[in-house]
Amino acid sequence: MDATMMDVPLSLNHVLERAGRYFGTAQVLSRLPDKSVRTHSYAEIYRRARALASALQRLGLKPGDRVATLCWNHYAHLECYFGIPAAGGVTHTLNLRLSPREIAWIAADARDRFLIVDDILLPLYRQLAPAHTFEKVIVVPYSGAAVSDEFIDYEALLDSGDPDGFAYAEHDEKDAVAMCYTSGTTGRAKGVVYSHRSTILHALVGCTADAWGLRNADVLLPVTPMFHVNAWGVPFAAVMLGVTLVLPGPHLHPADLLDLITAHPPTISLGVPTIWMGMIQAYDAALASGDCRWQLPRGMRSLVGGAAVPESLIRAFAKHGVSLLQGWGMTETSPLASVSYLRRELQERGDDERFRRAATAGVPVPLVDIRIRTDDGRDAPMDGKTMGEIQCRGPYITASYYGVAPSEDKFTSDGWLRTGDVATMDELGYIRITDRTKDLIKSGGEWISSVDLENALMAHAALAEAAVIAIPDQKWSERPLACIVLKPGAHAAKAELDAHLLQAGFAKWQLPERYEVLDALPRTSTGKFYKLALRERFKS
Amino acid sequence: MDATMMDVPLSLNHVLERAGRYFGTAQVLSRLPDKSVRTHSYAEIYRRARALASALQRLGLKPGDRVATLCWNHYAHLECYFGIPAAGGVTHTLNLRLSPREIAWIAADARDRFLIVDDILLPLYRQLAPAHTFEKVIVVPYSGAAVSDEFIDYEALLDSGDPDGFAYAEHDEKDAVAMCYTSGTTGRAKGVVYSHRSTILHALVGCTADAWGLRNADVLLPVTPMFHVNAWGVPFAAVMLGVTLVLPGPHLHPADLLDLITAHPPTISLGVPTIWMGMIQAYDAALASGDCRWQLPRGMRSLVGGAAVPESLIRAFAKHGVSLLQGWGMTETSPLASVSYLRRELQERGDDERFRRAATAGVPVPLVDIRIRTDDGRDAPMDGKTMGEIQCRGPYITASYYGVAPSEDKFTSDGWLRTGDVATMDELGYIRITDRTKDLIKSGGEWISSVDLENALMAHAALAEAAVIAIPDQKWSERPLACIVLKPGAHAAKAELDAHLLQAGFAKWQLPERYEVLDALPRTSTGKFYKLALRERFKS
Repeated sequence: MDATMMDVPLSLNHVLERAGRYFGTAQVLSRLPDKSVRTHSYAEIYRRARALASALQRLGLKPGDRVATLCWNHYAHLECYFGIPAAGGVTHTLNLRLSPREIAWIAADARDRFLIVDDILLPLYRQLAPAHTFEKVIVVPYSGAAVSDEFIDYEALLDSGDPDGFAYAEHDEKDAVAMCYTSGTTGRAKGVVYSHRSTILHALVGCTADAWGLRNADVLLPVTPMFHVNAWGVPFAAVMLGVTLVLPGPHLHPADLLDLITAHPPTISLGVPTIWMGMIQAYDAALASGDCRWQLPRGMRSLVGGAAVPESLIRAFAKHGVSLLQGWGMTETSPLASVSYLRRELQERGDDERFRRAATAGVPVPLVDIRIRTDDGRDAPMDGKTMGEIQCRGPYITASYYGVAPSEDKFTSDGWLRTGDVATMDELGYIRITDRTKDLIKSGGEWISSVDLENALMAHAALAEAAVIAIPDQKWSERPLACIVLKPGAHAAKAELDAHLLQAGFAKWQLPERYEVLDALPRTSTGKFYKLALRERFKS
Repeated sequence: MDATMMDVPLSLNHVLERAGRYFGTAQVLSRLPDKSVRTHSYAEIYRRARALASALQRLGLKPGDRVATLCWNHYAHLECYFGIPAAGGVTHTLNLRLSPREIAWIAADARDRFLIVDDILLPLYRQLAPAHTFEKVIVVPYSGAAVSDEFIDYEALLDSGDPDGFAYAEHDEKDAVAMCYTSGTTGRAKGVVYSHRSTILHALVGCTADAWGLRNADVLLPVTPMFHVNAWGVPFAAVMLGVTLVLPGPHLHPADLLDLITAHPPTISLGVPTIWMGMIQAYDAALASGDCRWQLPRGMRSLVGGAAVPESLIRAFAKHGVSLLQGWGMTETSPLASVSYLRRELQERGDDERFRRAATAGVPVPLVDIRIRTDDGRDAPMDGKTMGEIQCRGPYITASYYGVAPSEDKFTSDGWLRTGDVATMDELGYIRITDRTKDLIKSGGEWISSVDLENALMAHAALAEAAVIAIPDQKWSERPLACIVLKPGAHAAKAELDAHLLQAGFAKWQLPERYEVLDALPRTSTGKFYKLALRERFKS
């Protein structure tokens, strides 16, 4: 029999209309290049996004055309998130931390027609311009300076649009709205294309109380760049609910963020672990020296993802009344696939159990199927021990990459995404990432988890950071090498670190072959430890 | 361009699989006819639902076939919610409070093939059986008594199924999974048919933090019958998140519910206002007489809907640390269309403002478009004053009724549902229901809201309940008549009630023409005041 439900497509335009109609008084605060804060009301953002859509159509944008953005987190980037799809276009957020050559390659691969770029990023644009020609280059006068005549002024463009007369481009819910390239450490970058449907479903799952638990009354600070998996999709959800946004712009150093948080206290924030590591070190150091200018907002929830979160970091923030909530996912999964909320079974357990689970990648969220596949192609038992590759399936998981023939190393024959992350799952469904498939260390036929070693090392008082890689070994095939960064003025002898690891439960054969003390760890464009560089450096 | 997302349908089967895989240790508590409580684990419910699906297919169930249920809220009804769609069938929940003749008419209209019925409801079944023949009648031995040979024993049926070997029926996300008939006070009942898609989207919207805000750690008591708009869709969401369920069975009197709540304290519950009115009166009366056997769980959230919630009721529960959250919707809207959470703009206001908004029908939820249409076909301004009919549109709003040609009085020409509820919307999007279109009173050319009068009257200390209807008047065309029920031992003179209403802000011409004191108000099968009966009684 047929259901009687209306055939109404899921649509970002519905979200924008909601925001304009009900949340006009809500605010978007944007930090400008000079560190002052500019406030827009949702009513303004609504009209400006519609004006942008109208103007883009007048510039000749056709359904499905890509409009690239090269922007920090601020009002105009948020307007692009809604205005470009409203016009029928696809927002392609370029990662400004990549090399100009790589950005140009990605823009060419995606066939980006237009570019919207921050004026303060024009030096970067000029470096990549020779390698890819955009038909139109629209410059956001983000610093307040006048826009050169050779470009289109974003504000003048908005003035040329007609927010009142604008009519949304017709669309199916499976039509594309946004595009991100993966920032893999190996191989060429590959594009993932999100739809109205996947974006709305992802936002709804994220808004469930056990995940982000976003509320209208929240004040949200996305430190995660809007060019990195759409700031994990959280801005779409925020606009859907009329959440107050604090957008940090280009100033992401710990002291800058602490200034911002103190002046405009968020109730919820998001970022990669390195952001929070830097922040807590600066905060605690200031407190220790009697400097009380900063205030971490008690009760703030911080969503952390993009890399494993050490338990020691969760405990350090908990001391200040800030709870870190770990999520796991990737560009290919929109990204939210699992989240480490506290299950009912654990509510009455002690702090140790609570923190131990908080430091996992969490439990799969609704709509996402997750399986842990062992080397022999079976589902790993939920025993918290058996390792296998995480594979995902669901309506907001990618089925392919833009313009790339599907390959067996990325998708299984029965249609699951192969994530390349190795993990265990315990009896309650908590996933613990043990490694990237390529980061596992196989020593004498036994697997050693680099992530476990890193987390244990980072809990040592003398260490600021640690990355563990495999180095070739004649006898054992591979052995772990620990690259460590000491805290200022701290020292740590090998014997002391070994004893620390033994006490943490590691076997003797699992201890690092040696420790290399570095000034800093190399990082990828998204702030993750760049292990490939370390492997290159220490391969002999 | 094409999005790269997987083409995975939204599906109740995904929800059941999640529940079996991750939430096996979560519990479903069911109150039995003898008032004892029986506990099932989610692992059991999962296997039993799959066994049911397998057995139904072996009984000859074909895709789209209707399986009717005539059941209270308990484990077996929950198993039907998932087992019937898993087999490709459609769960048709029959409203056991209707007359046997009407139930039979509805079952015939829906062409229900099978029936699953509680043993304690067999007397009702025998009354309706002559008017509609089910091919198979499956009896749940809910009381523990043996099932007569003339029927199929539900437990024996489950034993005949194969939960391990069962394979879900293939389906599209727009395929039907459940069916409810509207309990209109006029006209014939009409069926609304929900799909996998609408049910999942509704559950996700409900789980957002500002709506139900359901969490895995919650203990949920649905007092709302599972035959009434699927207990507002909350059980689907609960199973999706692994929430502990307390299902009250047939014992819904205030003392029974207070016993249950005291023994198994919920963190969240749902029911119509009359349920909560009866409960708070019994609770406060017991406390006043020094009887402390009951305990309302502090911090419990109660979802209230199905009729307007008087502010006095919200305040009465707030005194005991219980917050009432009002939602608005109807069978045709799945039902959640708006919810009265506290917007950020109101967080810093005082209690009066807070309670005033809590007593509204709230703000539209994501995915649901709502407009207030005035008599002249325009959108009412958001001024909190202009009245119009609420019209809805969205992916979980019905576009038609089963087997009925769409009519202009139910759907607009541009595809919106006409709800028949009259309301205003204020500048923040809060909807205040002023009346059903047919309940508005037009006196001397001016509208009087019966709901406003009722709410004000119910805040008077002497009154237990009040329903206001229009009576014909030669001079004014219509005048309001207040039908009131006094609290035990209380008295209230007309002059006193008039003074109370004048103080509440009503104009003199808006006061009821007279007050009729009744022993009880007539109610519809779903517990709403049955104004049609009052109008009949007082029409001359």
